[in-house]
Amino acid sequence: MNLKKILPLAALVAVVPLALYAQDAAVAEVDVTPPNEEIGYIFTTFMFLVTGFLVMWMAAGFSMLEAGLVRSKNVTMQSLKNVALFAIAAIMYYLVGYNLMYPGDGWTIPNMLGAFSMAVMEPVGGSADTDLTYASVGSDFFFQLMFCATTASIVSGTLAERIKLWPFLIFTVVLTGFIYPIQASWKWGGGFLDADYGFLDFAGSTVVHSVGGWSALAGALILGPRLGKYKDGRVNPMPGSNLTLATLGTFILWLGWFGFNGGSQLYMDTAGNVADISRIFANTNTAAAGGALAALIMTQLMYKKPDLTMVLNGALAGLVSITAEPLTPGLGAATLIGAFGGILVVLAVPLLDKLKIDDVVGAIPVHLVCGIWGTLAVLITNPDATVTGQVVPIIIVGVFTFVVAAVVWYILKLTMGLRVSEEDEILGLDKAELGMEAYPEFYRG
Amino acid sequence: MNLKKILPLAALVAVVPLALYAQDAAVAEVDVTPPNEEIGYIFTTFMFLVTGFLVMWMAAGFSMLEAGLVRSKNVTMQSLKNVALFAIAAIMYYLVGYNLMYPGDGWTIPNMLGAFSMAVMEPVGGSADTDLTYASVGSDFFFQLMFCATTASIVSGTLAERIKLWPFLIFTVVLTGFIYPIQASWKWGGGFLDADYGFLDFAGSTVVHSVGGWSALAGALILGPRLGKYKDGRVNPMPGSNLTLATLGTFILWLGWFGFNGGSQLYMDTAGNVADISRIFANTNTAAAGGALAALIMTQLMYKKPDLTMVLNGALAGLVSITAEPLTPGLGAATLIGAFGGILVVLAVPLLDKLKIDDVVGAIPVHLVCGIWGTLAVLITNPDATVTGQVVPIIIVGVFTFVVAAVVWYILKLTMGLRVSEEDEILGLDKAELGMEAYPEFYRG
Amino acid sequence: MNLKKILPLAALVAVVPLALYAQDAAVAEVDVTPPNEEIGYIFTTFMFLVTGFLVMWMAAGFSMLEAGLVRSKNVTMQSLKNVALFAIAAIMYYLVGYNLMYPGDGWTIPNMLGAFSMAVMEPVGGSADTDLTYASVGSDFFFQLMFCATTASIVSGTLAERIKLWPFLIFTVVLTGFIYPIQASWKWGGGFLDADYGFLDFAGSTVVHSVGGWSALAGALILGPRLGKYKDGRVNPMPGSNLTLATLGTFILWLGWFGFNGGSQLYMDTAGNVADISRIFANTNTAAAGGALAALIMTQLMYKKPDLTMVLNGALAGLVSITAEPLTPGLGAATLIGAFGGILVVLAVPLLDKLKIDDVVGAIPVHLVCGIWGTLAVLITNPDATVTGQVVPIIIVGVFTFVVAAVVWYILKLTMGLRVSEEDEILGLDKAELGMEAYPEFYRG
Repeated sequence: MNLKKILPLAALVAVVPLALYAQDAAVAEVDVTPPNEEIGYIFTTFMFLVTGFLVMWMAAGFSMLEAGLVRSKNVTMQSLKNVALFAIAAIMYYLVGYNLMYPGDGWTIPNMLGAFSMAVMEPVGGSADTDLTYASVGSDFFFQLMFCATTASIVSGTLAERIKLWPFLIFTVVLTGFIYPIQASWKWGGGFLDADYGFLDFAGSTVVHSVGGWSALAGALILGPRLGKYKDGRVNPMPGSNLTLATLGTFILWLGWFGFNGGSQLYMDTAGNVADISRIFANTNTAAAGGALAALIMTQLMYKKPDLTMVLNGALAGLVSITAEPLTPGLGAATLIGAFGGILVVLAVPLLDKLKIDDVVGAIPVHLVCGIWGTLAVLITNPDATVTGQVVPIIIVGVFTFVVAAVVWYILKLTMGLRVSEEDEILGLDKAELGMEAYPEFYRG
Repeated sequence: MNLKKILPLAALVAVVPLALYAQDAAVAEVDVTPPNEEIGYIFTTFMFLVTGFLVMWMAAGFSMLEAGLVRSKNVTMQSLKNVALFAIAAIMYYLVGYNLMYPGDGWTIPNMLGAFSMAVMEPVGGSADTDLTYASVGSDFFFQLMFCATTASIVSGTLAERIKLWPFLIFTVVLTGFIYPIQASWKWGGGFLDADYGFLDFAGSTVVHSVGGWSALAGALILGPRLGKYKDGRVNPMPGSNLTLATLGTFILWLGWFGFNGGSQLYMDTAGNVADISRIFANTNTAAAGGALAALIMTQLMYKKPDLTMVLNGALAGLVSITAEPLTPGLGAATLIGAFGGILVVLAVPLLDKLKIDDVVGAIPVHLVCGIWGTLAVLITNPDATVTGQVVPIIIVGVFTFVVAAVVWYILKLTMGLRVSEEDEILGLDKAELGMEAYPEFYRG
Repeated sequence: MNLKKILPLAALVAVVPLALYAQDAAVAEVDVTPPNEEIGYIFTTFMFLVTGFLVMWMAAGFSMLEAGLVRSKNVTMQSLKNVALFAIAAIMYYLVGYNLMYPGDGWTIPNMLGAFSMAVMEPVGGSADTDLTYASVGSDFFFQLMFCATTASIVSGTLAERIKLWPFLIFTVVLTGFIYPIQASWKWGGGFLDADYGFLDFAGSTVVHSVGGWSALAGALILGPRLGKYKDGRVNPMPGSNLTLATLGTFILWLGWFGFNGGSQLYMDTAGNVADISRIFANTNTAAAGGALAALIMTQLMYKKPDLTMVLNGALAGLVSITAEPLTPGLGAATLIGAFGGILVVLAVPLLDKLKIDDVVGAIPVHLVCGIWGTLAVLITNPDATVTGQVVPIIIVGVFTFVVAAVVWYILKLTMGLRVSEEDEILGLDKAELGMEAYPEFYRG
């Protein structure tokens, strides 16, 4: 019994110094200029297209993961939400988000207001005055859009099995058109988190994952838990209906993450840049492996039985944890950073249940808790990171996202209502709201 | 009641001028020569390999989509057909199709007869007299083969749940070895549709998708509807057995389509070409998003309940619609062209049912109806397109494919028989023809 | 009855000379130096990242294939094993395997002992003394790691439904950290199979696939068949629970194999190299097609009913068969080499059953039998191959792997026990060992 409490703590204590020790690769920047500007432009642009389609594929991963972890009676709805949110993200980011995220020189009110405009790509055939030192606008838009969509994908899982379709989609409109791009502009649009705090968040442990997590948390608190989840002081397990689907979703996300982190290098025009992308691929992979194994060992020790869904979330936890800094760690440090994420998830899932926060797929432990951990872990391997520069932005982004998301959820609750009726929740959203079951011939209901 | 009829019409009326208005990107060709021939050759060749494997992946998408939309008792057969048709396409395109599709200077009878030969790639290590201005023969073959296979994949869904395996596979032999390559040669092999009509079909809304659609339509008419589908003047719904599989299939197709449309740029040797591929990726994505959301809104308005299978087909409709011209539209026009495709699908599915044409997965609305719409939509954004140059080839390809396909289907009907016995159809093809169920432990049958 | 025995033999007899005849592409190496060293480095490195992520995706393919071919009651366990083994491979290959596989100049005891060290990538930003003639260390590590993981994935399917989790994972530690890298060093690390025998195994029909197969065979012999599989002299079929999942897994593997074979070209810095990679992609595809169709025809002829699981294994057999030499064959030879693999699988599966070796997913026929066939088939199309140079290494690698694997399995059997109790096996590993069903709402148990 006590062992169950001591072991995880011991693991935590053991992992931190190991992670510090494991910094096995020196940071040695080499000055290289691309051998040819136009060739560098082609390399970087194509890299964005390839890594961008990998991140797009993550939308399928979230869809499979979430559809696998809800009960059969809500699977059609969960699939519909995942397709619709991706489509909404694509259109909102085009209409507003992309330009809002890059409002020009610094974040000022006039800049932000001026940034309300639709994305426009380079003309067909390119342009004579194209800046060949970066990549095509179309490829940059394509890549950045996928990050916006990922943020939205994170939210849908937590709120599954009880939220109505349309209020969820309206929230997605606000999240992808406004909340995500505005806070992302503070870091990636050259805003104050970047300029004043020196905030380091390579591929978005905070900017993407914790923003999705905070939005989900605000929604979960306002929406409340599923009927019967917490009853008579006990947590009632509601097992997912299709664990191979959840496994597939995890593998898809693992694959897509190479694009997520690798593409965030933003350049592939020199030997140094492509070597860095290679480091990122290898580190991303090993962090996921570390997270999965840590969760496997933890659940074996704590519950005597390994838990597949925890192992899947452990892999995702490792991926989120390495996202803020997938470049500077060596393979050892990356493995341990990921492993620590896996441990956190195993501890955070029951903690949320104790707080009666009902997160159907574990998105808050994975994306919020490990998003924070990953952002702090930058301090371990990147000498440029400062405690203030990491902690204060975590808080600012957290407070902004949580408050705005809570206000939007609350307005939706007051106006349209967020939650289906008790009757519909018991019947399942598929029959009640859609009139279409996902597995009409299997389900014993 | 009337609203249900007026709304879609209103939507149609509204979308067309919007699409015209939304042409937000000027067509401004910039002259650029590749910085180095061999490097350009490597870029374009590798681009074909990457986009080619994405299109290959679409075969899995069709397989999942179709297996998800048929009833449990026919799932093994549907999976078998999808694997086998892809394999047949690979071999027929090698044996006959590839050379038949590129018969040399113009389409003449001697040229076509002379074109009956097997594909031969460049020798190992390349060849001293390789033309470095394009790409390797192997990569071109690999890429083009996948388009031929896609055409075959379209047919299998429509005819599911009642056609015998072997006649279907024999039709696939004819389609992939002859019908597809011959008509494709008229446009992409430099034939008369290209040379005389100035027909514009960037990635094949007509050449691929409508050809699949016409073949499916001819088959559906000759094969007849499933037993009990249209009975006593009512349409009997036969819901798909696995909607997460259908969702996965749609996501796979969405991903693969970046390769389908992007690779059709055919060159990635200059900054202009890679910027164009970027435009195509972004437009392809937003057209799918537009199609999905349009179908979501339409089904909500028409049936009060959003319909997941329609939303999935809406996304695919958007993709087919943008395929004839994914380059010249801006993001706004692309979204609306896709959205209009999504509307068309929602209208065409019940229309087909009214005509008692039984299309199990909705392939005719998606690939034929939107294939035609997409080919016409080129007129909206590409100033080089002419009404004659688009309409006449649609008709010529349609008549050719429909007639030849109908003759082949009819011969197969007379000789081998197309359709399983009533008894076998009721029992399900899996047990009757294969003796192997897809889900032996779930199925309540 | 006799026909059933004669036909396959006839097919064998017919295919071999056809394969010899079909050598339709001359081997004509052209000397080309890369146009620019740094650009060549970027090309090759990026190629490793792209082909590497494709091979990583194969882990998902194995997971889906195996989860689809086991019975519902063992699906969670099979999924868990697949995720865990991939994670273990990632970490063991980092800790030991990578350096052990490349022990420096030739295989000597001091070299091997000196090779026990952790992998270290190039520093951030690259290094001033980077050798630009190859690729980044990180990308090479990432790519090679995926081959190690593939080897482990092969084993899990054969031993499904009866082996305990932890002994299986411990075997995976030994396989990925030691057995695989040591024997791989003999060929790919410049060891004696490469230097002394001129052994040709382009992408690992022997080094990867047969090693996985031998390990699985040793395990299957020591573990014994599933309860009730061979009873009263009859083979009791235990059909897979989810054939769409198995189909998906096969498509994933087919896709991933382009990376597996294509990336093994190891260079993409010249026109000749990228043309070779194109040949490999096209040959890999057509070999899979040949294998699938051969299995389709064979099962139709032998059993009167085509068998989907055989067709899937036929495709995989084609892929394994072409892996030892995907470059020198022309499309015709590649198709036939793959087709012969498909025939072998259809013959080997019942043969194994006759020997009462219970291979749940058919991994031994696919990876071991076709791994040997593929390695021999190099002799057909590559004039550099010698009979001794192919046969002796097959034997050496086979004996080494089989003996070491058998010893490890045996030690695990004596210490921890390999097999779950009869009771647990009947109940299913998911309930018994994990307390978590994969499809809790479908399963009729």
